[in-house]
Amino acid sequence: MSAKQEIILKPIGVIRTTAIGNEVRDKTRTSQVVIRKELTTALNGVDGFSHLFVLFVLNEISESQRKTLKVHPQGRKDLPLLGVFATRTMLRPNPVGLTLVELVKVEANVLTVRGLDAFDGTPVLDIKPFDSWDNAETAKVPAWWTQLKKEKEQKL
Amino acid sequence: MSAKQEIILKPIGVIRTTAIGNEVRDKTRTSQVVIRKELTTALNGVDGFSHLFVLFVLNEISESQRKTLKVHPQGRKDLPLLGVFATRTMLRPNPVGLTLVELVKVEANVLTVRGLDAFDGTPVLDIKPFDSWDNAETAKVPAWWTQLKKEKEQKL
Repeated sequence: MSAKQEIILKPIGVIRTTAIGNEVRDKTRTSQVVIRKELTTALNGVDGFSHLFVLFVLNEISESQRKTLKVHPQGRKDLPLLGVFATRTMLRPNPVGLTLVELVKVEANVLTVRGLDAFDGTPVLDIKPFDSWDNAETAKVPAWWTQLKKEKEQKL
Repeated sequence: MSAKQEIILKPIGVIRTTAIGNEVRDKTRTSQVVIRKELTTALNGVDGFSHLFVLFVLNEISESQRKTLKVHPQGRKDLPLLGVFATRTMLRPNPVGLTLVELVKVEANVLTVRGLDAFDGTPVLDIKPFDSWDNAETAKVPAWWTQLKKEKEQKL
């Protein structure tokens, strides 16, 4: 495959949640990741981990929204206009979401997880265990990022 | 889009490295992520971050390898046979790789990064800034994972 070719992915499952709208951002809520039954065996051993990455499709993003190159973080005009790759906006050329979640339990083909900020019905692409390689203890972030984080913490 | 529908992604760029074979696992090596020229604007502000996630296509994986449900971690028969979602194996239903890298520099449409374990020519799907939300300070991992990690550290 060359870098110009398209890649076709097929969801491994779907997210189930009772959260509506901004409620999905509540990190204390739990959701279910329902994996396709024929893939249940591929979950064997997942319960040994406390944290997993979930990759999912941002399926409410239109073809034209995928062409967005710059955004204000969270639509806030008081913050700088930035390239989409400098933010976690849903508006990106390949609308794939990535969230680190806490694994609460595994029952057959259903994972109960905490902190998954995705809507009900979201297609899931992959589940990966969290590794210390994925950890940047001394990560540097821009000022606008720190400002957003502070505001979020004050709201909690 | 329903959970059963396929999703089509188009690479945003390609990985360039002189590393061959297992050399790509050397976390001290640098690689280039060359983004498609028409997306250069979308990198604006990326240089404010020290760490980024790179999502890429595991493009050496065949259709039949994507059907693998269980593996021994790193092919080691002395370690348990586990579901692919409990490991970071390349053999997975959707062959998408995820690596946290250190950003060394940004020049026009080229990111120089450290620690990207992907081969030369690998198609890139997304770049996301690393956030403290992505950090699990107290992550629990299984015994086989700790064993592999210890062995890796002893080799360094």
